[in-house]
Amino acid sequence: MNRITVLRQKIKEEKIEAFLIKGTENVSYLSHYWIEGEILLSSRDKFFITTSLFAEEAKSRLNGWQIVIQKDSFEKTISEICKKLRGKRVGFEASHFSFAEYERLRKIKEVEWVPFSGLIENQRAIKDVGELTCIEEALKVTRAAFAYLENELETGVTEKDISRKAIYFLRENADEEAFPPIVLFGERTSLPHGKPSQKKLEKGELVLLDLGARVGGYCSDLTRTIFLAGIKEKWRQIHHLIVKAQKEVIKTLKPGISCSDIDRMIREKIEGAGYGKNFIHGSGHGVGLAVHELPSIASRSKDILKAGMVFTLEPGIYLEGEGGVRVEEMIVVSEEGGRVLNG
Amino acid sequence: MNRITVLRQKIKEEKIEAFLIKGTENVSYLSHYWIEGEILLSSRDKFFITTSLFAEEAKSRLNGWQIVIQKDSFEKTISEICKKLRGKRVGFEASHFSFAEYERLRKIKEVEWVPFSGLIENQRAIKDVGELTCIEEALKVTRAAFAYLENELETGVTEKDISRKAIYFLRENADEEAFPPIVLFGERTSLPHGKPSQKKLEKGELVLLDLGARVGGYCSDLTRTIFLAGIKEKWRQIHHLIVKAQKEVIKTLKPGISCSDIDRMIREKIEGAGYGKNFIHGSGHGVGLAVHELPSIASRSKDILKAGMVFTLEPGIYLEGEGGVRVEEMIVVSEEGGRVLNG
Repeated sequence: MNRITVLRQKIKEEKIEAFLIKGTENVSYLSHYWIEGEILLSSRDKFFITTSLFAEEAKSRLNGWQIVIQKDSFEKTISEICKKLRGKRVGFEASHFSFAEYERLRKIKEVEWVPFSGLIENQRAIKDVGELTCIEEALKVTRAAFAYLENELETGVTEKDISRKAIYFLRENADEEAFPPIVLFGERTSLPHGKPSQKKLEKGELVLLDLGARVGGYCSDLTRTIFLAGIKEKWRQIHHLIVKAQKEVIKTLKPGISCSDIDRMIREKIEGAGYGKNFIHGSGHGVGLAVHELPSIASRSKDILKAGMVFTLEPGIYLEGEGGVRVEEMIVVSEEGGRVLNG
Repeated sequence: MNRITVLRQKIKEEKIEAFLIKGTENVSYLSHYWIEGEILLSSRDKFFITTSLFAEEAKSRLNGWQIVIQKDSFEKTISEICKKLRGKRVGFEASHFSFAEYERLRKIKEVEWVPFSGLIENQRAIKDVGELTCIEEALKVTRAAFAYLENELETGVTEKDISRKAIYFLRENADEEAFPPIVLFGERTSLPHGKPSQKKLEKGELVLLDLGARVGGYCSDLTRTIFLAGIKEKWRQIHHLIVKAQKEVIKTLKPGISCSDIDRMIREKIEGAGYGKNFIHGSGHGVGLAVHELPSIASRSKDILKAGMVFTLEPGIYLEGEGGVRVEEMIVVSEEGGRVLNG
């Protein structure tokens, strides 16, 4: 079913007159285009609100939308449109409007604002074939980037050098990088989200690369820990443990499993090997128009696995001041189970 | 005066017990470091709240802060800290917490939440010498990038090619790009915020480059319209008009002028030449830890120019379907007046 149709059913069910959408990826998901703006959707109309900066692009690219160019404040623009609506209850994305923005919207007398969270995010979690094709293409470029970068890993090269080359490669072969690449050498691999620095690669050091490409708006996200000559045996054992845990859990995946259970299963395997306190983040996250989206594969997640979901599994073991190993794969779930996306 | 001290005075004046800060640049401004987290500041204590992902980095880099590693939800973590406070009124950044986040915070019984907007943003608008040095360094790299890229502008090269080279250069010579470079050729120069495409450069086409570097957290932001051989005389006249308007307005700058007046002055000059409706955006914006910050140089701005403010002036004239010209400079204001930052 059409994305807009799904949302219009919701509008009917929730007895609201319209829905105001601001989340960047949500706007892009509904408009099938990346442009700055907000959407006001009613059962009859669909308005795309943007500024004069994007007027020319909006008019030529957003077919079927009523383009509203904001001349005054956002609230006044919304107020004008809402006057034309029959009812007064309008839903809004509670996670994408700031409290200050809400306070300004609240001053529109004719509207009663109804907060909603996660409506479109939950739709986005299930990928269709077209979305999957983009993700697979983004994965293909990311795998090619790993192969290319591995050749560039010479003693003396810096984390920043490799990160810069990664971006150049991703932008040459895909639309752009999905996020700033994480490139860490030696003991700095113990920082799960460390920023690339001027640290030079020395012999016998671990290398951690966490990269993603974007194709047609859709992201990939993979991590590799690379073992050059002279790496201590301990790290190879840790790597083996992580990959084994990951593989075993992937075999058990199927629609209906709770995402907190997936996290627990991986965590127990790592705890069993004595590294429980060294696995310092969640087990994974959905990937799509955003690098981090639903489902969340973490202990406090309430998400349930469904066919069509695409997410990462990324166990990691970090020894403070020594180094870390993380391996991140992307998985798609179908009625048959989970499978690693190869791209 | 110390950044924290200024804020603590505000806490006293506003009769609140503490202040909860979430804006990325605001957190970085107060902690002098880029790390994901929130700050809870009271008259006695300063807490830096982060996740286990950043625990190692936070402990080693944030001296003088009480590091709180979030084990449960954000609200529970905040609730725990607030229990130790004497009073119950706590300020929060209304523009940086979503309505949904506010609703969750509101469930903390012991706290009465008081919304504030722009408190730290207004502090940040006035730059000190250290901040100015970073901005000037970022400008130096951006100017070097223009010189380098101009040499790369051969017939057949794509917007994406040049954009990729720009990022590589900025990351080689500064910390990173301040924002994804805008690179537009030919009639696409009429899109003020267009994304680089596969469009190839042809003879006689306009080239618009909007670039910035980041150094020590601080941004630069400059735009150049480049005239290769064979450009129509009309564009040169438009360019001349824009630069003249910009120069004349810079001469009038001094502390105390309202930013809406600056915008009006530039706009009148462009209107006078018959291009009023082709200047489709504000005249400029503050630049610092964020590429767009206070002051806003626009018709609806309420900001007043003060010594120490750093901002862009970027008049542009866009002819739909034909092309556009924009020239963006960065200005610093002192008691003596405004001056173009050279870097």
